[in-house]
Amino acid sequence: MRNINEDTITQAVLASMAGCRDARLREVMTSLVQHVHAFARETKLTEAEWFQGIEFLTRAGHITDDKRQEFILLSDVLGLSMLVTAQNNAKPAGCTEATVFGPFYVDGAPVVDNGADISNGAKGAPCFVSGQVRGIDGKPVPDAALDVWQSDDEGFYDVQKPADGLHEHQARARLYTDAQGRFDFRSILAQHYPIPHDGPVGCMLENLGRHPWRPAHLHFMIQAPGYERLITHVFRDGDKYLDSDAVFGVRSSLIADWKRHDPDARKTGTNEPYYSLQYDFVLNPSKKAA
Amino acid sequence: MRNINEDTITQAVLASMAGCRDARLREVMTSLVQHVHAFARETKLTEAEWFQGIEFLTRAGHITDDKRQEFILLSDVLGLSMLVTAQNNAKPAGCTEATVFGPFYVDGAPVVDNGADISNGAKGAPCFVSGQVRGIDGKPVPDAALDVWQSDDEGFYDVQKPADGLHEHQARARLYTDAQGRFDFRSILAQHYPIPHDGPVGCMLENLGRHPWRPAHLHFMIQAPGYERLITHVFRDGDKYLDSDAVFGVRSSLIADWKRHDPDARKTGTNEPYYSLQYDFVLNPSKKAA
Ligand SMILES: [Fe+2]
Ligand SMILES: [Fe+2]
Repeated sequence: MRNINEDTITQAVLASMAGCRDARLREVMTSLVQHVHAFARETKLTEAEWFQGIEFLTRAGHITDDKRQEFILLSDVLGLSMLVTAQNNAKPAGCTEATVFGPFYVDGAPVVDNGADISNGAKGAPCFVSGQVRGIDGKPVPDAALDVWQSDDEGFYDVQKPADGLHEHQARARLYTDAQGRFDFRSILAQHYPIPHDGPVGCMLENLGRHPWRPAHLHFMIQAPGYERLITHVFRDGDKYLDSDAVFGVRSSLIADWKRHDPDARKTGTNEPYYSLQYDFVLNPSKKAA
Repeated sequence: MRNINEDTITQAVLASMAGCRDARLREVMTSLVQHVHAFARETKLTEAEWFQGIEFLTRAGHITDDKRQEFILLSDVLGLSMLVTAQNNAKPAGCTEATVFGPFYVDGAPVVDNGADISNGAKGAPCFVSGQVRGIDGKPVPDAALDVWQSDDEGFYDVQKPADGLHEHQARARLYTDAQGRFDFRSILAQHYPIPHDGPVGCMLENLGRHPWRPAHLHFMIQAPGYERLITHVFRDGDKYLDSDAVFGVRSSLIADWKRHDPDARKTGTNEPYYSLQYDFVLNPSKKAA
């Protein structure tokens, strides 16, 4: 400990954790220290670069608040979120695959009945979404809690809009499947959108020659007793960003066809074309229940 | 890109940076992504643990301001700072070794003459510090700018105290070596101190079974034309934390004897014992000048 140098530092840090009584914490931190040190050695990181890293994290921390989460964005664009999602959600064939949670979920969205319009003032072409939630055995799952959230036709989620009370809980809601496991609601057509890129993560993407766009999608979180919670998206087929999602969340099985329909003022109350999406979800029984 | 899973995600992220025009940025980010992913795979990081990491970084960002730098603390306690310092400051034998910069340096400290008392109201036993700055060829280095900063007898730096204007620039100053490369100033006796541990990094140390203490030291930054900048500490021999420095900064060659002297009211203006430290610094010629 009195002769720390670039060769002995890693062992010294690991030795300092010998008294840790949380075996899992020690395991995780041992791996973290080894990889952080390996990164610094492999790149021969300079002091100026180290300080750029400190400044990057500081800016990310300062732009983060209860509506903006730059560290989740960072994890998303580095593929860490998708990696953690994938390795914790291996499911049998036939189950709906999981994808990233993203930074825009809001706890406590309003509970609505099937058939409701969840747009709540968010702008976009009318879109009717319906489907069924089943177990892998084919049985419908009644009373499943289904959280849905999405961006509007300008690509913004409600939480990205001014906090003037006029945009709260737009295009987000919770509903429950009926006795046949069915759900349906009206919302707006999802559009591709850029992740928030006016902060350090956006700056990093630009320097890396990457764009911040995500293909159009609906977010779903589905929970039912006896089943694993499913956090996923449904992606809109034909979107030009399906092959370059900024957060690496696309899975072929999650791409679906949003059908376009001619205007029907009696159905939609407008004279514009409308869309429909039909998508079924298949849940994996939870390990306790299996 | 449409079938990202835990095996293909790393290559997908690396491929996304193919358009990066900054070769060094791409090199650093390639290594970072590989090590972050390897860490998540090796530990089979869970989603709950991932979220704890997000929350940790968020707390670190929110406690960081222009006086408090939690990300530097984090880098320090994980040994990253010392590793980066060591690998960027390899010097020929005979040169004074470098150690970590730490989070308490302040730009623009008052410039004082040799012989000045830099404590400026900071409390502690009087301590007289003197020495010489030389090149490795033995030649004195005149007009070297010498920044010094330290904590007081309670272990606090001025910047950790209330921002009431009463504690600014205590026990920190800049002075210049004379024609013989000599410097001397009066300050206070450095004491061991805990790094700020009321934030997420302190919480992490506690969970790891680590203490937050650093052995007593003086910080120096020495700059002179034709020489590499030297950022280092002088540690106080006999300190009980020399073998368990929370930030891994100790090097044997930087440990020095603070001599204790009987009271001498004419010299110190008090009736308490006082201390003296004599330490010489040897600078490495800068590569451009060599
Ligand atoms: Fe989204
Ligand atoms: Fe210090």
